[in-house]
Amino acid sequence: MIRCDCAVCRSPDPRDNRTRASIYVETPECKFAVDTGTDFRTQCLRENIWEVDAVVLTHSHTDHIMGFDDLRRFASPRGGRIPVYASAETMADMERVYEFAFKATHRWPGYLHPEPHIIRGPFSLGETRITPLPVPHGHSETYGYLFERGGARLLAYLSDCSAVPDDIARKIAGVKVMVIDALRHKPHPTHLSVAQALEVAERVQPGQTLLTHICHELAQSAEADLPPRTGLAYDGLKLAIEP
Amino acid sequence: MIRCDCAVCRSPDPRDNRTRASIYVETPECKFAVDTGTDFRTQCLRENIWEVDAVVLTHSHTDHIMGFDDLRRFASPRGGRIPVYASAETMADMERVYEFAFKATHRWPGYLHPEPHIIRGPFSLGETRITPLPVPHGHSETYGYLFERGGARLLAYLSDCSAVPDDIARKIAGVKVMVIDALRHKPHPTHLSVAQALEVAERVQPGQTLLTHICHELAQSAEADLPPRTGLAYDGLKLAIEP
Repeated sequence: MIRCDCAVCRSPDPRDNRTRASIYVETPECKFAVDTGTDFRTQCLRENIWEVDAVVLTHSHTDHIMGFDDLRRFASPRGGRIPVYASAETMADMERVYEFAFKATHRWPGYLHPEPHIIRGPFSLGETRITPLPVPHGHSETYGYLFERGGARLLAYLSDCSAVPDDIARKIAGVKVMVIDALRHKPHPTHLSVAQALEVAERVQPGQTLLTHICHELAQSAEADLPPRTGLAYDGLKLAIEP
Repeated sequence: MIRCDCAVCRSPDPRDNRTRASIYVETPECKFAVDTGTDFRTQCLRENIWEVDAVVLTHSHTDHIMGFDDLRRFASPRGGRIPVYASAETMADMERVYEFAFKATHRWPGYLHPEPHIIRGPFSLGETRITPLPVPHGHSETYGYLFERGGARLLAYLSDCSAVPDDIARKIAGVKVMVIDALRHKPHPTHLSVAQALEVAERVQPGQTLLTHICHELAQSAEADLPPRTGLAYDGLKLAIEP
């Protein structure tokens, strides 16, 4: 973190060097990003990502949208068009922040031209069924997402939440992998703590739990203290989730 | 660059690995950033920057403003307040994009609270006199800046321009260091080419010329072909400019 020389910020473990939370999903029919945070370009270069067919957004906080313009490199081979999925509130913020792209001011040939898709319920990207999971994030709301293929609950992604209501926990019960917000041990008004995330896992009973959106108050080495089938996600972590 | 495997994008020379153009100026009385691009956090961590007293913006294109929110770490010790200097047009864009910060919606204690200063002529940060240099950037306009101390023209920074009109060249004539846009050899509608930047240097006659905002079509090794006292800037380059 800027202006910090704590043990985690100076850690030699590369997994303690964290950029902003997001995921990239590859399926045979469609490759998509969930969020385009400020580090999106850095992450795409690091992971050598060459294709993004669509973008799904969790919410419009800066750490989740400020790399959106770098989608241009993925969009330009298709005339600039790229489908963007978000809640109505998030899309309104995107249209305000990226006015030049959505309204096509300052237009270049092949320049980023997002196609807004307001999420009003489950939708599909290729053969992946995606169900929005509205969760509180302090006083605001974000969308987590459940990803299913062939009727199997493969992944629940809940990157920014301060609680997971029971109706959401039931929707993702038994999911193969749950990636969930756990900022640190100390409680925080807009993010789950480690203990709170583990309590959600007790209700959901996922096959595997990975904590994400971790701040510098939690070292990667803290993974050793977590329950079985529970880990700390890190930059560049790759998962193969089979139905 | 995303989706590219050209020689520069695969170069082992770390100077060919370029983040977005910006500078950080340290003086005894004031430390300030010119632009807070998408890589601002990455750059601050890399250079171990602990203080930013003010921000000066050249224009509002995404590669120059999308890291603005990361100023919060520098602003929080001063109750979130940080002075921001920009043209009226750029400030209007900042207030739109960073509405939550400027309008203090979603306010947290100590959260980023920019103090807008519309640039209408020369101004000072500490003992540094800063003169805006309006230059065309394709169909839009950006501000370059001349930095003077004790009456000496120390640095002209012109990161994004497609031309440098004679009245601007005269204002910076004989400057010790000119940092100027030179995207690549091939002409571009909104950026100077290497040849065009060198032509500006002929008129300005700076003590040293450094090309910046370089794209992957120009390798760091091309520096060998440049005239005397002319180089290619690179990430992390440090200059000590004395009056």
